[in-house]
Amino acid sequence: MINRLTSEERASQLADLRGWQSVAGRDAIQRHFRFADFNEAFGFMTRVAIKAQEMDHHPEWFNVYNRVEITLSTHEADGLTSRDVELARFIDSIAAGPLSA
Amino acid sequence: MINRLTSEERASQLADLRGWQSVAGRDAIQRHFRFADFNEAFGFMTRVAIKAQEMDHHPEWFNVYNRVEITLSTHEADGLTSRDVELARFIDSIAAGPLSA
Repeated sequence: MINRLTSEERASQLADLRGWQSVAGRDAIQRHFRFADFNEAFGFMTRVAIKAQEMDHHPEWFNVYNRVEITLSTHEADGLTSRDVELARFIDSIAAGPLSA
Repeated sequence: MINRLTSEERASQLADLRGWQSVAGRDAIQRHFRFADFNEAFGFMTRVAIKAQEMDHHPEWFNVYNRVEITLSTHEADGLTSRDVELARFIDSIAAGPLSA
């Protein structure tokens, strides 16, 4: 069992994420990425997929050509947990370069 | 330059696709897939990605865990073309087993 982040935990744990936004009507966070092309976008997705499988914690995501939109939330807790923060940190670490949308 | 399918072409070319539906408000087709788990879903997506790159024709798609929703349309033609049919046929060919949603 994993619990949703408390308000204090949210403030401290989300502070160092890069470009993640709250999702309207859901306890979730979302970030949009834009890459050079599909090859780069899907390569990024593959790295996230391998990490997600390792964590047994999977993203909701949308891709078209060079754009990727990732939403993180923990189904089991019906909201944001430390697992989402961990996956978001990994994603930030491999999303090279300046903040993109 | 590639042209949208005519009504006659749509009728003949879409007839043998499996489980693809029209998308409300867009000249596009969509199919939903459900796999055993994320590993199987992302493996399927990877096969589609390689084919898409080879065709230089890419899907719009959403994934969460074992579910994949694929929308096909041709941006350049602002609608459905023979490229979408070709990619849909490939997708059908690798989506094993009975029709799934």
